[in-house]
Amino acid sequence: MPRRTDVASLVAQAREGQARAVARLISLVEDASPVLREVMAALAPHTGQAYVVGLTGPPGVGKSTSTSALVSAYRAAGKRVGVLAVDPSSPFSGGALLGDRIRMQEHATDPDVFIRSMASRGHLGGLAWATPQALRVLDAAGCDVILVETVGVGQSEIEVASAADTTVVLMAPGMGDGIQAAKAGILEIGDVYVVNKADRDGAQTTARELNHMLSLGPTRGPDSWRPPIVKTVASRGEGLEDVVEALEKHRAWMTANGTLAARRQARVRGEVEAIALAALYARMGDVAAGRRADELAARVLDGGLDPYAAADELIAGLAGS
Amino acid sequence: MPRRTDVASLVAQAREGQARAVARLISLVEDASPVLREVMAALAPHTGQAYVVGLTGPPGVGKSTSTSALVSAYRAAGKRVGVLAVDPSSPFSGGALLGDRIRMQEHATDPDVFIRSMASRGHLGGLAWATPQALRVLDAAGCDVILVETVGVGQSEIEVASAADTTVVLMAPGMGDGIQAAKAGILEIGDVYVVNKADRDGAQTTARELNHMLSLGPTRGPDSWRPPIVKTVASRGEGLEDVVEALEKHRAWMTANGTLAARRQARVRGEVEAIALAALYARMGDVAAGRRADELAARVLDGGLDPYAAADELIAGLAGS
Repeated sequence: MPRRTDVASLVAQAREGQARAVARLISLVEDASPVLREVMAALAPHTGQAYVVGLTGPPGVGKSTSTSALVSAYRAAGKRVGVLAVDPSSPFSGGALLGDRIRMQEHATDPDVFIRSMASRGHLGGLAWATPQALRVLDAAGCDVILVETVGVGQSEIEVASAADTTVVLMAPGMGDGIQAAKAGILEIGDVYVVNKADRDGAQTTARELNHMLSLGPTRGPDSWRPPIVKTVASRGEGLEDVVEALEKHRAWMTANGTLAARRQARVRGEVEAIALAALYARMGDVAAGRRADELAARVLDGGLDPYAAADELIAGLAGS
Repeated sequence: MPRRTDVASLVAQAREGQARAVARLISLVEDASPVLREVMAALAPHTGQAYVVGLTGPPGVGKSTSTSALVSAYRAAGKRVGVLAVDPSSPFSGGALLGDRIRMQEHATDPDVFIRSMASRGHLGGLAWATPQALRVLDAAGCDVILVETVGVGQSEIEVASAADTTVVLMAPGMGDGIQAAKAGILEIGDVYVVNKADRDGAQTTARELNHMLSLGPTRGPDSWRPPIVKTVASRGEGLEDVVEALEKHRAWMTANGTLAARRQARVRGEVEAIALAALYARMGDVAAGRRADELAARVLDGGLDPYAAADELIAGLAGS
């Protein structure tokens, strides 16, 4: 654990864009370090500038390749870029699997690109717990854009959407059938849709089906955002400038009508609530560590108490602690 | 919402094994009905008999087919069987996709088989929240065995393991490579491993690799449980009696040394804690609905407050509520 002085200098170094300091601070977040509060307090005045883009989609659509190509596109525009690759499907690993990250190698020596893989370790709230705080580190480090890529599926998609200013949903030819899309819930979270591998057979069909399914969604007013569908071949860097353009349009639209401020407000409120909930749970953990939770569980097992009545008793104990 | 008398008669009907009443009670659980507390209180004296088996594994291994074949095997032994198919990857659907459930059709008319698909809708705690209570309904309905099959991947595997007395991990030929297995974390949760599609090329290799990987795990004492690896061809019903035998061995081992009681105690304790946490969160939601949470979030957005300090203020408000 770094001493008090170390936190201050780490934050100062991160603000200067030193990659080691950024990495160290994210590690402190990931490990839920005892100095985490101190880190967050030190970062607070320097946050709020970064534009956060979430990238999600089913396995096999080329998320890592697309993320890397998007980094290149933003770098070409002179932006400082952060990448957070989250793998919520790896709760046991104690560290992200880095196999896919090889695609990021081309950016490894760029001092204006920060890349970080995070394994979400089954903390309460999963991705929601650690991601906003890691974003805060990258934000304070001066990133203009932060790309959050999820390696997982399912629930993580919603979590990415809730963490991002703009959510990009990636598809690929042959993955556009209705059940698949409905199952992933992706039609409800995308601000921008990308059909990657657009040089393959079926890309046009996928885009058309996607367009059709999006048209079946909630009726949109004249001022509402109609998610564009962009075609890319990320492995060759094709179409990424169109993605950046779609993102900037969405950002401008959100800024103009207050959506961006509202989303960020909701996000931070959720973040604050999640931290408060975890703190309450930790308090409950203290109670549970004692005999009472076990006694209550034993009474439920015996059929003498139902779990709700037991929870009431547990809360009564917590309130008194 | 059923009236008070309806809950009592629903529970009575469920205890008599009436499928409609069982289905209705699980719906009340899924919908977090206002009468849920009353339902749980009415069920409490009639629970604690069922043996809960979790089935998990990567997509494509034949989980639904294996579950159906296992139902047949238990029915052949005269057991009443419940099946809970949970799809945590479907948070938006508001209902489980029933496509795969077609494989369960052969049991649809059997009065001693209860089959239920549940979509986990992103409740706090996901699967962990609704599953134990649905299990309680099936338990009170007199099920000797309840099979919990997860349709999702990742986090859901751990949740299934934490809900079950015994966890079965399914594999199939060609899926046994190290990274795949380590990523899914499956080597740490299985009590019984099944290599399904054992008539295919590579089944022997998969079983051998699995055996090797399990041998790399924590050192086991002479009295510890060494997870067996069973080969099946579920689509033809082959090998399922071996799975049942392995399950019964594990159950006998757990019963003899107290593991079963300890697991159930931990499970119910977790269930009680989850309910208590949700109740606290609901209370917090009341606070958050007011201006304070938004004010705190705005101060965090301005950089004037860090999220931890904001959470402290939120908790202070909660404690006073």
